[in-house]
Amino acid sequence: MHELVTPLGAYISANNRCRFRLWAPQKKRVQLHIVSPAERRVPMKKIDADYFEAEISDCPADTLYFYILDDGNDLPDPASHHQPQGVHGPSAVVDQRTYPWSDQSWNNHPLQKFILYELHVGTFTEEGTFEAIIPRLDALKDLGINAIEIMPIAQFPGSRNWGYDGVFPYAVQHSYGGPDGLKNLVDACHNKGIAVILDVVYNHLGPEGNYFTAYGPYFTAAYQTPWGEALNFDGPWSDGVRDFFADNALHWFRHYHIDGLRLDAIHAILDNGAVHVLQYMNEKIDRYIQHTGKTVYMIAESDLNAPRVIQNFKTGGYGFDAQWLDDFHHALFVLLYPEGKERYEDFGTMEQLVKAYTEGFVHSGEYVNARRRKYGASSAGVLGSKFVVFVQNHDQVGNYKNGDRLTHLVSDVRLRIAAAALLLSPYIPMLFMGEEYGEERPFLYFTSHDDPELAAQVRAGRQQEFEHFLGSDPPPDPQAESTFQSCILDWSIRTHGKHGRLLEWYKNLIALRRKHPALQNFNKADTQIRIIGSGAWALIRQDESKQSQLLALFNLSDRPVPFAFPPNS
Amino acid sequence: MHELVTPLGAYISANNRCRFRLWAPQKKRVQLHIVSPAERRVPMKKIDADYFEAEISDCPADTLYFYILDDGNDLPDPASHHQPQGVHGPSAVVDQRTYPWSDQSWNNHPLQKFILYELHVGTFTEEGTFEAIIPRLDALKDLGINAIEIMPIAQFPGSRNWGYDGVFPYAVQHSYGGPDGLKNLVDACHNKGIAVILDVVYNHLGPEGNYFTAYGPYFTAAYQTPWGEALNFDGPWSDGVRDFFADNALHWFRHYHIDGLRLDAIHAILDNGAVHVLQYMNEKIDRYIQHTGKTVYMIAESDLNAPRVIQNFKTGGYGFDAQWLDDFHHALFVLLYPEGKERYEDFGTMEQLVKAYTEGFVHSGEYVNARRRKYGASSAGVLGSKFVVFVQNHDQVGNYKNGDRLTHLVSDVRLRIAAAALLLSPYIPMLFMGEEYGEERPFLYFTSHDDPELAAQVRAGRQQEFEHFLGSDPPPDPQAESTFQSCILDWSIRTHGKHGRLLEWYKNLIALRRKHPALQNFNKADTQIRIIGSGAWALIRQDESKQSQLLALFNLSDRPVPFAFPPNS
Repeated sequence: MHELVTPLGAYISANNRCRFRLWAPQKKRVQLHIVSPAERRVPMKKIDADYFEAEISDCPADTLYFYILDDGNDLPDPASHHQPQGVHGPSAVVDQRTYPWSDQSWNNHPLQKFILYELHVGTFTEEGTFEAIIPRLDALKDLGINAIEIMPIAQFPGSRNWGYDGVFPYAVQHSYGGPDGLKNLVDACHNKGIAVILDVVYNHLGPEGNYFTAYGPYFTAAYQTPWGEALNFDGPWSDGVRDFFADNALHWFRHYHIDGLRLDAIHAILDNGAVHVLQYMNEKIDRYIQHTGKTVYMIAESDLNAPRVIQNFKTGGYGFDAQWLDDFHHALFVLLYPEGKERYEDFGTMEQLVKAYTEGFVHSGEYVNARRRKYGASSAGVLGSKFVVFVQNHDQVGNYKNGDRLTHLVSDVRLRIAAAALLLSPYIPMLFMGEEYGEERPFLYFTSHDDPELAAQVRAGRQQEFEHFLGSDPPPDPQAESTFQSCILDWSIRTHGKHGRLLEWYKNLIALRRKHPALQNFNKADTQIRIIGSGAWALIRQDESKQSQLLALFNLSDRPVPFAFPPNS
Repeated sequence: MHELVTPLGAYISANNRCRFRLWAPQKKRVQLHIVSPAERRVPMKKIDADYFEAEISDCPADTLYFYILDDGNDLPDPASHHQPQGVHGPSAVVDQRTYPWSDQSWNNHPLQKFILYELHVGTFTEEGTFEAIIPRLDALKDLGINAIEIMPIAQFPGSRNWGYDGVFPYAVQHSYGGPDGLKNLVDACHNKGIAVILDVVYNHLGPEGNYFTAYGPYFTAAYQTPWGEALNFDGPWSDGVRDFFADNALHWFRHYHIDGLRLDAIHAILDNGAVHVLQYMNEKIDRYIQHTGKTVYMIAESDLNAPRVIQNFKTGGYGFDAQWLDDFHHALFVLLYPEGKERYEDFGTMEQLVKAYTEGFVHSGEYVNARRRKYGASSAGVLGSKFVVFVQNHDQVGNYKNGDRLTHLVSDVRLRIAAAALLLSPYIPMLFMGEEYGEERPFLYFTSHDDPELAAQVRAGRQQEFEHFLGSDPPPDPQAESTFQSCILDWSIRTHGKHGRLLEWYKNLIALRRKHPALQNFNKADTQIRIIGSGAWALIRQDESKQSQLLALFNLSDRPVPFAFPPNS
């Protein structure tokens, strides 16, 4: 199996011997430049048309190195496992064999049992590190969380970033704690029965510290994405790019014991070839699962409303285990907060909430104003456990004006309604950090680019994005450290007063979800939802054998709504 | 059914009343400018956000008109049915109800029975018209042809063009005979038992006379094709573009009794949405078939080697009835003419021919030098009748140096071997006009652009394309009338001498194909091919019930090759 035998990057094999492997097609000559502990230059061998290799001795862990292409400048390794001095510095050798894992008895949970919790390492705690998360795991476990989803931690420029500006997909953000920090966190999670899902970005690379184009045709002019030229997944030399990213998925499973990946915005991963790179990747991962016996999950963020994302290969699908269901959020959000229609103009009816519960995609082929076209296809037959739902997430909060959480927008009662709508749904629920206790601090967009020109562009871009909402008032400056600081969770309020009461509510709902047989059934045909008044609905769940039922009544109006019981009468 | 009720363009309904319908989103105002017989301007009504309509009286057939957008200039109708003065002139109203069809008893042949014959209207006869083809149909019928495939006839600039520079997808080239000329030809074909397949171009529009961008967002900057920005099949406002082309397919079926379409280069029809426009189109056509009871076929030219093109919707396919199998040509061509490797560098082994016969795609996932990547997926399980094969076609001849036909490149014996390899294959065979008698005139690339700058570009482009083959010798000037003239078939040689003998050979092979039960079986698993020496192979076909077998022995070497009979011993 190629993907397990010849990975990219630097690998210590034994006795300080290290093999370096690099994809650099069309390059005549590559040198390995060891920077420390003892400087030297080693010419690399061209292995085939596209790859270079060098194997050297006296190369302990933490050895720093660059590559030199055709007598050019020092460049960090695109497949660097560690960038201890940031995106512009040398790459560091990591010994992936030596970490003292203590999670041998860990087995991944079935996906259907997941209670997901999305967190951003930098703002989850004051310290903003992997290490600082560990003491907080008991609180999450107590809440009922059994899987955390970590926003991207691949090395990005500076120390403050959502993570989607990452430029070293194999490296672990040094300021978060680097490779060992992540391993410590995963090991601790596993020992507490918590799975770890990692958010990865395979649709673009960030604008700063991106040395990829120097190495080869990673990008193609054939397709444009919101970030510029698309990654080259189907053009000449695309095999190297396909393997770079497909093997990256395996990298996290093998070396960091990650239990699943959440792929960012797969609609911007463009491939018109015979085998879509996402299928190619998922096939590789299937072989990894076969080979190792481990269970790992692939979850997509998709803006396509296309069932092919989660269909299997035989039916022309990409083979993801699950995908995010944004429509569930949008349908519910605009009912909870009608002013939200300014952002989600095509939502706001009760019927859409019904469709979100019973079919999945709310837009399944009809004309959508915001898109100026007919959009989506039906997901009616798709099992509910193939969808991850949420009432808040980094994107819906962070890209709303003022980084407003639901707490800022709706009443405490509505927060509870949102929680119940989420946790009693026939889908995989995901909380956004702080949601469970009504965190009042915002989640804003923040960056810490070194390049002043880029920083100015980011500022201007944000202002433009929010003009529609905020008029000429600029949104908080993404580059300001204070913007970042203002987003750090306030753990001090978590168990107090109304926060504590909301936390209990979440905890009880999660406990109910884990216990009640009717809530274990992901067959959407067994979920009924009835509109019983304006802003009021009944949700009826039942188990597969129809022995057990659960009825939940929701009322967003300010008046009592009559409802006859039992519901079938 | 929207697609049958409100088509684009000008439609005479009754008593000289005519309805004009135009897609022009984002336009405030559109006027219909009737140019003749009596000039007048009629404001058009905005029907919904995207469409304008006008219904007027006193509008007989051949009325000439333009549209005027937001007080701009006269522009021809993108959905014009006729451009009697060429691409820059006014559009003409066609009365599609009045043609005296005499093909009521015609029923399309089963696709599996097709013996296709590709022809170019301009060079098939001296006259270069639809009308001039009709007297030649008996010769084709006598040969055994039961389906002609006409290279594109949508209105193109000038009078000499392969057809892929068309800019009015609903119009019929005026210099070929216009709408009635095409109807006469189709009616005559049907009366002789010959089906008519039309080559249509839905991946781009030509560079001259292209007024589309004035009307709306027909193109998108998101994707690039060899011809520039791609047609907009998935972006904002793409519904209008999707319907424009999907309804175009129906246009040919409804008004011209066309029996099937061959879609040019569908790999350049880019769509990342939930429902690919090709699926959308084929679904519309399926409804047309249901509705009318007529049988029509959709055939794709695809450079993807992707089975999804010909798979059904349920398995994630686009739902084409068949696609061209270029690999069959390439595998055979380089065996017949080893110098051909300079164009088809990844072909040339006997094993590839075996794979072409028994699987279909020769490149089904392996690395292909010319593409610098792994390419294709397996078509092993696909029924043979889903592939159209050829040993020559307009592209392989016309884009080879000097427009050389196989006649110029290989011996008479090899021409016969090629014919047998083609006509005994488990695929739908297609001949290229003149192939059947070894036409000696070339088929060169020719154009007749008015715009001198564009003409110079085309010349330079061709020279660049052929530099690799021809060095600094320029290829024949595409703009020269003599280039076009040199390509007109020489019917005078057809039945004479070696030409007549080759014609008989084709005729006998076709007769055998139509008669022999083993040649009716398109299950590739029942086709065997054995290499029996260098350049020699045995082809064994059998019928589905294994009652009847056919053995054909091929020998490209200059020596006898022993072969034991029966082959299984």
